[in-house]
Amino acid sequence: MKWSAIIHIIGMMLEIEGLLMGGCALVGLYYGEPSGLYFLGGMVMISLIGAIMRKIFPQGVYYAREGFIIVSLGWIVMSLAGALPFFLSGQIPNYADACFETISGFTTTGASILNNVEGLDKCMLFWRSLTHWIGGMGILVFMLAVLPMTGGYNMHLMKVESPGPTVDKLVPKVSQTARILYAIYFAMTVAEIIILRLGGMHLFDCVTISFGTAGTGGFGVLNDSCASYSAFCQVVTGIFMVLFGVNFNVLYLVAKNKWKDALSSTEVRVYFGIILGATVTIALSIMGMYGGIARALKEAFFQVSSIITTTGFSTADFDMWPAVSKMILFMLMFVGACASSTGGGIKVSRILIGIKIVKREILTFVHPKVVKGIKLDGRKVDKEVERSVAGYFILYFVIMGISCFLVSVDGFDFETNVTSVAATLNNIGPGFSKVGPMGNFADFSVFSKIVLMFDMLAGRLELFPMIVLLFPRLHRR
Amino acid sequence: MKWSAIIHIIGMMLEIEGLLMGGCALVGLYYGEPSGLYFLGGMVMISLIGAIMRKIFPQGVYYAREGFIIVSLGWIVMSLAGALPFFLSGQIPNYADACFETISGFTTTGASILNNVEGLDKCMLFWRSLTHWIGGMGILVFMLAVLPMTGGYNMHLMKVESPGPTVDKLVPKVSQTARILYAIYFAMTVAEIIILRLGGMHLFDCVTISFGTAGTGGFGVLNDSCASYSAFCQVVTGIFMVLFGVNFNVLYLVAKNKWKDALSSTEVRVYFGIILGATVTIALSIMGMYGGIARALKEAFFQVSSIITTTGFSTADFDMWPAVSKMILFMLMFVGACASSTGGGIKVSRILIGIKIVKREILTFVHPKVVKGIKLDGRKVDKEVERSVAGYFILYFVIMGISCFLVSVDGFDFETNVTSVAATLNNIGPGFSKVGPMGNFADFSVFSKIVLMFDMLAGRLELFPMIVLLFPRLHRR
Repeated sequence: MKWSAIIHIIGMMLEIEGLLMGGCALVGLYYGEPSGLYFLGGMVMISLIGAIMRKIFPQGVYYAREGFIIVSLGWIVMSLAGALPFFLSGQIPNYADACFETISGFTTTGASILNNVEGLDKCMLFWRSLTHWIGGMGILVFMLAVLPMTGGYNMHLMKVESPGPTVDKLVPKVSQTARILYAIYFAMTVAEIIILRLGGMHLFDCVTISFGTAGTGGFGVLNDSCASYSAFCQVVTGIFMVLFGVNFNVLYLVAKNKWKDALSSTEVRVYFGIILGATVTIALSIMGMYGGIARALKEAFFQVSSIITTTGFSTADFDMWPAVSKMILFMLMFVGACASSTGGGIKVSRILIGIKIVKREILTFVHPKVVKGIKLDGRKVDKEVERSVAGYFILYFVIMGISCFLVSVDGFDFETNVTSVAATLNNIGPGFSKVGPMGNFADFSVFSKIVLMFDMLAGRLELFPMIVLLFPRLHRR
Repeated sequence: MKWSAIIHIIGMMLEIEGLLMGGCALVGLYYGEPSGLYFLGGMVMISLIGAIMRKIFPQGVYYAREGFIIVSLGWIVMSLAGALPFFLSGQIPNYADACFETISGFTTTGASILNNVEGLDKCMLFWRSLTHWIGGMGILVFMLAVLPMTGGYNMHLMKVESPGPTVDKLVPKVSQTARILYAIYFAMTVAEIIILRLGGMHLFDCVTISFGTAGTGGFGVLNDSCASYSAFCQVVTGIFMVLFGVNFNVLYLVAKNKWKDALSSTEVRVYFGIILGATVTIALSIMGMYGGIARALKEAFFQVSSIITTTGFSTADFDMWPAVSKMILFMLMFVGACASSTGGGIKVSRILIGIKIVKREILTFVHPKVVKGIKLDGRKVDKEVERSVAGYFILYFVIMGISCFLVSVDGFDFETNVTSVAATLNNIGPGFSKVGPMGNFADFSVFSKIVLMFDMLAGRLELFPMIVLLFPRLHRR
């Protein structure tokens, strides 16, 4: 293992994190909040440590296994550092809670341990939402986009940090691909901020909500999440959540005006199909609660788009909805958004490949001599990808099962245990019952919080990197 | 599709079912129950129809795809016919309920729609338990053992009806293998009956409980399942449940006194390890409820062995146990027993292969150039088996998800919905909440009952045959 290369790159990650904290210090200054000083201190300290790490440990060649460690360890270090302003300022007095909140931010989960979000200073809220924005597209992808990184197989980093079974290079160069992705991401975020502002939302809320939408995070700045915003702003947020859940390769095609190619993506069509179907079904089931189909459609659309994209904003207490609506939402938690989007979950394309694996299996059973490859969008799916999808599904349910067991030690009800794991492993945010949209994760023991933090990281980084970190024996051979 | 061969064999299945009903008629006669006449009538009618089917449609050569249809369709036809005595006698006045009970019997699930089991006549209770015994080892395996079946690829039938990722032929001939399996099965059942009788249990209970244990079914004859039997009888039943959950290939080795070979089976060792670990953990967590470790160990052992083997008997209302104990039981529902046993669930060996697939996947990620095969017990796992295990896992969770959604239409709570599906798909019997050990499946709508009946059959026949039947397009190509 080439530790020097690993520490070098993690040092760079910390430097960037320090810079971002500088931004929060400015927000603190603007609002005249003394707690902004903690970001100033954080900026100095974290950048300094990062710079020292970068200087002492020279950059070196790294390979796939270093890529895994850089990503998994890097994200953990960033979270531990990012939690410091919350903790040192006393705004989140418990360090484990501060870490939970920060990991929830970077992994774009949006699960909170805060009983009273509005009690936090603006600069703290801004940092919370900024972690979503950075975590959504990924900090290493950001570094690949803006820094001249040589000597390593950068594609490995991108592959590990980007969601989905495959990563397409939009253009031959990795750095150029990363730049295009961030350009789309930035442009769409700005567009949402402007439209929300035109809809009459406060600028601070516009920015933070847009950060949360873009990263499909889910941290809001009000205790009722998005319930008190105007219907216009809610619908706009809903639409943007859906857009940020679209495969960015497809958004790139749209940006290049290749609509026909864009619309030919099976994944995106299935994704929109699921959103439509789920919205209509839920709307019909909750009509009675909202006095008519129009309001029911709005609530259903917002919640479906929030859950399938794994954002986690809410405009209503969906924990009170009928069983069938809750079950649809529960299933959408697992489906997740498109691959190569900022959303979490299993991903639509992975599910499509999974179903094709099953179909092929049935065909092989019935006609034992025929063994065929699998195609998606007319292209053959690599044997490697096929195998990794199968492995992902199995590992996914193993982690899910073990986490449910560990969390149940706290003695909460079945629904809380299962949905708290589903909501963190899929990077959603809220679950049902105790962790429903009106609840939070504050009452869990530190032990359970650590389990759920692991799940958030595992979910965001697509399972394997965290397992490699947990079982070092696996990468020694 | 060679329909003639299919109908011919299903006809034979019905003839055997008719004969078995004759046995229940004798039980009715012994207890002087008029309802026994319905079994007499059933015997005549069903045997006759079976014989006519067999005569009119000649036996023919059949292949893998016919094997699938024979098993899936055959089991459905047998259940529809087997429900008639319950329905016609008025003991289960609703035909859908009678079918639910019969499918639950044949698939060795043990989920019941009865509020008052003790209200049924003895001959009816006997039939319920007999379906467990037949379903446990499989009716087609029985036919292969006792009838001269030629002209077909009998291994296909055995493969489809036997649980687990692979089927080993113990000896070169299929019919001989089937005979050995039934001999072990029969001998162990008789042994259990004798030991329970020596423990002071009523003979009728000895026989029916042994049938349920052997098939890992779970239908009891008392309203409290096994709670009112003596501690001795409970422990004996617990031990036999564990034994019937062992891979029968291993039991065959034991019978041949090859202990060393038997004990070298990774699956069996892991299976016993899980039982031990789960029993101790649960015992510690419920100690307070049962006034000491001894009683707690007994209750924990009985329930662990009942759930992991997917039998479903109970001696205590485990729905009242602490969250962590319930979560362990919930996970054991999925683990299930060993392959080639009479138990359901995913099966220990399939989980072992699944974990090895994940391990290999991580290794491949970290060292991209190394792609290795998977080994179990020192033998290489076929690529085909590996693929079918992966396909099984994916299909399993797809069926689980869709079923939970469909069942939730009835509007029950989350725990009821999820565990009712888990309890039927894994052929357990009881779940938690409304379908807990003190509850039953009576209140579900007919629609949900049909979904759960499908799940029971899918679980017993290992998913694929039922999907082939549901989507005929798949086997046409």
